[in-house]
Amino acid sequence: MVFADDPSAATLNMGLNSIWVLVSAILVLLMQGGFILLEAGSTRMKNAGHIAGKTIFTVGLCTLVYWAVGYAFAFGSDNAENSISSLIGSGSYFFAPSVAAGDGESLPTTIFFVFQLAFAAVSLSIAWGGFAERAKLSAYLVFTVLFTAVIYPVISHWIWSSSGWLFTKGAQDYAGSTVVHLTGALAAFAATVLLKPRIGRFNKDGSANEILGHNQVFGALSVLLLWVGWFGFNAGSALGVGDGFFGYVAFNTQLGAAGGAVAAMLISWLVNGKADITTTLNGALAGLVAITATCAFVDPWAAVVIGLVAGVLVFFSTKFFEKIKVDDPIYALSVHGAAGVWGTLANGIFATDELAKKLNVGEGGLIDTGNWHQLWVQIESVVVCGAYTIAVSFLLLGIMKLVMGLRVTEEQEIIGLDLSEHGTYGYPEQMKKAQQGL
Amino acid sequence: MVFADDPSAATLNMGLNSIWVLVSAILVLLMQGGFILLEAGSTRMKNAGHIAGKTIFTVGLCTLVYWAVGYAFAFGSDNAENSISSLIGSGSYFFAPSVAAGDGESLPTTIFFVFQLAFAAVSLSIAWGGFAERAKLSAYLVFTVLFTAVIYPVISHWIWSSSGWLFTKGAQDYAGSTVVHLTGALAAFAATVLLKPRIGRFNKDGSANEILGHNQVFGALSVLLLWVGWFGFNAGSALGVGDGFFGYVAFNTQLGAAGGAVAAMLISWLVNGKADITTTLNGALAGLVAITATCAFVDPWAAVVIGLVAGVLVFFSTKFFEKIKVDDPIYALSVHGAAGVWGTLANGIFATDELAKKLNVGEGGLIDTGNWHQLWVQIESVVVCGAYTIAVSFLLLGIMKLVMGLRVTEEQEIIGLDLSEHGTYGYPEQMKKAQQGL
Amino acid sequence: MVFADDPSAATLNMGLNSIWVLVSAILVLLMQGGFILLEAGSTRMKNAGHIAGKTIFTVGLCTLVYWAVGYAFAFGSDNAENSISSLIGSGSYFFAPSVAAGDGESLPTTIFFVFQLAFAAVSLSIAWGGFAERAKLSAYLVFTVLFTAVIYPVISHWIWSSSGWLFTKGAQDYAGSTVVHLTGALAAFAATVLLKPRIGRFNKDGSANEILGHNQVFGALSVLLLWVGWFGFNAGSALGVGDGFFGYVAFNTQLGAAGGAVAAMLISWLVNGKADITTTLNGALAGLVAITATCAFVDPWAAVVIGLVAGVLVFFSTKFFEKIKVDDPIYALSVHGAAGVWGTLANGIFATDELAKKLNVGEGGLIDTGNWHQLWVQIESVVVCGAYTIAVSFLLLGIMKLVMGLRVTEEQEIIGLDLSEHGTYGYPEQMKKAQQGL
Repeated sequence: MVFADDPSAATLNMGLNSIWVLVSAILVLLMQGGFILLEAGSTRMKNAGHIAGKTIFTVGLCTLVYWAVGYAFAFGSDNAENSISSLIGSGSYFFAPSVAAGDGESLPTTIFFVFQLAFAAVSLSIAWGGFAERAKLSAYLVFTVLFTAVIYPVISHWIWSSSGWLFTKGAQDYAGSTVVHLTGALAAFAATVLLKPRIGRFNKDGSANEILGHNQVFGALSVLLLWVGWFGFNAGSALGVGDGFFGYVAFNTQLGAAGGAVAAMLISWLVNGKADITTTLNGALAGLVAITATCAFVDPWAAVVIGLVAGVLVFFSTKFFEKIKVDDPIYALSVHGAAGVWGTLANGIFATDELAKKLNVGEGGLIDTGNWHQLWVQIESVVVCGAYTIAVSFLLLGIMKLVMGLRVTEEQEIIGLDLSEHGTYGYPEQMKKAQQGL
Repeated sequence: MVFADDPSAATLNMGLNSIWVLVSAILVLLMQGGFILLEAGSTRMKNAGHIAGKTIFTVGLCTLVYWAVGYAFAFGSDNAENSISSLIGSGSYFFAPSVAAGDGESLPTTIFFVFQLAFAAVSLSIAWGGFAERAKLSAYLVFTVLFTAVIYPVISHWIWSSSGWLFTKGAQDYAGSTVVHLTGALAAFAATVLLKPRIGRFNKDGSANEILGHNQVFGALSVLLLWVGWFGFNAGSALGVGDGFFGYVAFNTQLGAAGGAVAAMLISWLVNGKADITTTLNGALAGLVAITATCAFVDPWAAVVIGLVAGVLVFFSTKFFEKIKVDDPIYALSVHGAAGVWGTLANGIFATDELAKKLNVGEGGLIDTGNWHQLWVQIESVVVCGAYTIAVSFLLLGIMKLVMGLRVTEEQEIIGLDLSEHGTYGYPEQMKKAQQGL
Repeated sequence: MVFADDPSAATLNMGLNSIWVLVSAILVLLMQGGFILLEAGSTRMKNAGHIAGKTIFTVGLCTLVYWAVGYAFAFGSDNAENSISSLIGSGSYFFAPSVAAGDGESLPTTIFFVFQLAFAAVSLSIAWGGFAERAKLSAYLVFTVLFTAVIYPVISHWIWSSSGWLFTKGAQDYAGSTVVHLTGALAAFAATVLLKPRIGRFNKDGSANEILGHNQVFGALSVLLLWVGWFGFNAGSALGVGDGFFGYVAFNTQLGAAGGAVAAMLISWLVNGKADITTTLNGALAGLVAITATCAFVDPWAAVVIGLVAGVLVFFSTKFFEKIKVDDPIYALSVHGAAGVWGTLANGIFATDELAKKLNVGEGGLIDTGNWHQLWVQIESVVVCGAYTIAVSFLLLGIMKLVMGLRVTEEQEIIGLDLSEHGTYGYPEQMKKAQQGL
């Protein structure tokens, strides 16, 4: 046994925080199961093994890179005295933490690391939405390294490190509508623009063809897994148990998700005459994305409203991206991008002064205070973080496109990435039957 | 940071309870993943997207309705001084809880709410068993509202609210064999009777055709997810950590589930000559349903016996419902109904006086005390709760049938609800191949 | 309410341990969901219902047997004064634990039981790798009883019981690279040798045919579920929260898994010219298996190295078993066997003296101490445990083969075990279409 028989209140408190944050980290890692099903279910059978399997590889590689340098750039404090520390962290490369919590530490750094790493991996998996069904496997490998090293940790540092310049300004992004979701979505945007649409997605006359995903049961299960994991994402961001406030965060999270699912199904029913399953699933996720920044700052009624708006927004956003001929196979730009922006800005509207003061981050929003200040901070935060992510993503992916190429050949895309990149179908029996039928 | 550095024992204790009950609530929400797979896997490919996707929508809507009124009817205490409070709660509409635990509170109400909501959503998902493969989407929408507002909260209030009249009588239903499972199953019963059997389920001569579910891997995984989630369901119902009693609840839960799975497979092997997978899966669930009421009241050997009986019961119950020509696509009437009744009554037989006294709910059962009293309380509880649920379900669904209709047209049922209600197949590639083959 | 209002520090500490270890047990049970998908996805459609459904049955039966006798042999202490207690435990048959933690107990025995049972069930599910696609259902039934009663508990007693002879020697196997994984893998080895390869796996000229699994999405999701569950497996083995050391275990676990996934994909890409999905998935699991023994004993850099080596090892091990014509459908011999041996031995190389002393198990390994002692202990541990498992498995399965037969008929194997053992396909619609196509 490695523990004292009669621990102090501080040690017990550290124990509470440790359990909750490690459970939360595990829940956030479980969200990768959601991404496997979401991405595979939203695309075609010929690419399913590739899409599902690459998640395991990229989560692994992301882990090693975040351990080697990403965590250092996000939370390293060697340069804390230096003014550059408002822009990027340093130190703790190839992170070798203490094996136990130190005196006065409310959480072991080991657990903080696993929690932050799980967030980085989620942001990365969102980015893959822009690569789906046509990017080369080597592009996944190289971009995992670049995203985990120089894109995600920088945004994470700006908003979540106590020395980050947006944190200092009072930017409110409790669990990462901007840090995680918008960052991933904008990397996906750069990728899908540079990769160009999938063969057959748009016709020469500019009209669009829907490329249906192959499995909506996977889709629904994926949303459920993500929803469940999101309790770790949001309520885990309390980083402790304390007075039970993390329960309030969970409560608002549930309301936001519910609002998104309901609004999205109803709006699609109303507008299209049929309630669309994909829209409903996207709505639940959009509600979750929007409540991510706001869950700790707003009243319950506001959580419902934020979710409802996100559900409507994701429906029209999807139509918009199709109209401007951006191919967004997993709806990352709408679900994580549009709803990520909405969630971040929503703090500027709905945050209450009481909660902002409790958390000691910024101040109340427009409705509670009548003051536009926080909304401007939120807009600045979205614009600056978005600009950085878009610029660096286009730059790095652009160089990759020149140097190594991003996209498989037309022939490879048509036969599918399971065969072209990995040598076997992910569904060999079913694909064989399909071919025999042709 | 939102917590004191040196918290009191009471605050630390609240922290323990908060973590365990929120983790439990998350596990109960994870059970919806089990229901997605169970319901989709037990039905046909042409309805899979509809069945899976509607779960996300109805869980969302259930959340909003429970937040608005359901929680108030179940646990609102504004009328505590009023004699009507033994029948229904009031107050806490559009629930806006404190953001943290108050002085002397052993659990934040935010977390209590999420936990109770997750139970309501499970009961609702059980009810869908009676709607499967032929109800209109609009029927799901309307019945979600009605069930969450006026059916489930009433039963929940009677047995679990400290002012409820069956609680006062000492009815023993630890985690809801009656409150959650029987209530859901009887709503399913009303629905399946009013909807009538699926096309092709029974022949004109009265004989039955089996309509096989399309995916037993989904079925097995669903049972595993439900099994895992059930630890939150049962052991979470301790609502705290205290002396470690919740571990005993988990221990008995595992034994009951095991007994159900083993007995069901063996009885089907014995009777049919082949061990049936569906029966095995139903047996595990029936064991879990039966141990739900009893997990905290009985000895381990009794937990095994309760599970074994449930496994045998579910096999014969399924045959019985088929014989009386009730179409029960997901086996809700047997798994949640018959086993729910058995579990509730089993407390009257197997409860020990020591545990009843420890929990301060009722007294020991027939075997331990030789006294029939508790068994009569349990019978009364099942009969009264069952009568309310059946009566109100038939009334509300009957009105719905008259006003808006419950069932899709014959043509829509034949092409499947994916196309008729949502416009696309849930498995578009596979269904296309199937059609080409015809 | 069952708890005091103002609990002591010792009670609160017990509460912390209870939550963490029960959550861990639940995570380890969730791994069965991973095994359902892994085993079903790695085999053919005609056997999918059988393979998935038998997991529910065997986990149930394993529970009853472990409750009746397995736990007694592993951890019963009635013979503690007797010298035979170094070989096997006794007492606690049909285990009836206290309903709450006793004075001075740091964990309720109920929770310890559920945790240990979940480990036994994992080891059993690994063993099924050697039975897949050709063993009779009755063989699963009988071997579940034998494995849970007389194989797994003995190894578990030797290494993990405080009276076990290898524990006394200082064998380091933190969470069971040997106890759980190697034991399961060697039972699988005995089974696959006695059952002989599946029809069509090897040609008469000695060359091999690959029998592809039918669903790589299931494969990837299974790995993710196992990965997530492994945090309970490894970090739960701390059996408490204490100074937060369990976070360090989780941290190393993530690094080991990542190393395995990355190394396996890269080596297959390098050697075969195509990055193989199955190899990648096996690599992540092999990394997890190898870090299981070592997670608490090594530095982070060593965790990465152990994972990387496991990823390479699993690739070549798979080739080796194919070359010697051992049919290993789920790759149990490579993933759990080879990597299990590697993980156990790795402690002899990489364990640090500081951590061995902290845990009070053995001493540091070759690199930290320059001393070969611990490596010899680890080798002895692997050899002796392996010899016992192989010998007893061959003996028991050999008797079963003589008495009842292990394998279905050739005809049954060709039509598939779903039909032959259970009477219906697991995928009835898809298999019907397939048959119509022929």
